[in-house]
Amino acid sequence: MSTTTNDSTRNGVDTATLFATIDAVKAAPEAAKFQFRAHNEWVSGTHSRGTIHDFFGVGEERAHERSFTFDADHPAVLVGRDNGPTPVEFVLHALAACLTAGLANVAAARKVRLTSVKCTVAGDIDLNGILGLNPAVRNGYEQITVRFTVRGDASAETLRSIVEQSRARSAVYDIITAGVPVNVEVDAG
Amino acid sequence: MSTTTNDSTRNGVDTATLFATIDAVKAAPEAAKFQFRAHNEWVSGTHSRGTIHDFFGVGEERAHERSFTFDADHPAVLVGRDNGPTPVEFVLHALAACLTAGLANVAAARKVRLTSVKCTVAGDIDLNGILGLNPAVRNGYEQITVRFTVRGDASAETLRSIVEQSRARSAVYDIITAGVPVNVEVDAG
Repeated sequence: MSTTTNDSTRNGVDTATLFATIDAVKAAPEAAKFQFRAHNEWVSGTHSRGTIHDFFGVGEERAHERSFTFDADHPAVLVGRDNGPTPVEFVLHALAACLTAGLANVAAARKVRLTSVKCTVAGDIDLNGILGLNPAVRNGYEQITVRFTVRGDASAETLRSIVEQSRARSAVYDIITAGVPVNVEVDAG
Repeated sequence: MSTTTNDSTRNGVDTATLFATIDAVKAAPEAAKFQFRAHNEWVSGTHSRGTIHDFFGVGEERAHERSFTFDADHPAVLVGRDNGPTPVEFVLHALAACLTAGLANVAAARKVRLTSVKCTVAGDIDLNGILGLNPAVRNGYEQITVRFTVRGDASAETLRSIVEQSRARSAVYDIITAGVPVNVEVDAG
């Protein structure tokens, strides 16, 4: 990363483009309707392979510059072969990445230069739920804790307020804390 | 994959070990308390890098056989450099992988041999929410649709009931539909 930044690029964020994008959406709110997708194919046992490539946004079908492929599995202690992280770990990764991206954008908009952002996201889960052994135990995480370490050219109070604004505008934080209706359709022909 | 299966291994699932694990947890419910973790380090702009390695379970600290590393970013149309999927796409991948792993386990337990399982998970999101342009629009997905194509040596009705049981016991489905409390801590020293 460059040690000098002009007024438009800060923290690797092109704030001119960021603000232009916000203005464009203000003028045409329909442009902000996106559909993201993940495709998945079962391999064997708890091992599956996901592909992320195509999405819809700004009025048309689009695609990432390349396809991203991710294996998921269970570790041996959960009767898998450890070919990838567990699905519930990908959820934690998504939360960490969403809050971090937001933090960089918000800091850039507030003219704060970040030097380091790290976090660990930990989720506590009691597998008596998914194993069907205790109806009082839920299937998912009971709680999730995010621990950020943030450094930059602003006061601790300002840095904390940037994290707070990222949390308040995070898509993944909202998905995880507030819930989303999920419809499951099956072609079992 | 082998074309022959004995009574213990089906769909790549070692059902003897699966049932032994369930019996072990019945005898010692504390063994089922797990903590999963994702670590993340900001790279630049909306680009960050997540690492999944360590976790706690069955009474002790454990780790995957290797570290898994995943970049996340925004595509150019969302003012990023497309170094990885967006965080919200990882959420869809997690849901697909969780339902698919459960499907293989449930089918094995019910002595159904699967031949093919594919799905696409699609999430609709209106970015007027995270852009702060419309307070009536939420930050996260408005709805998620999972479309499974399942083939195996059982009736369509049986295959559908296996998907339904996987959904009813899915950790990620529960996380996404029912919500989880998330606590954010900040070291901004």
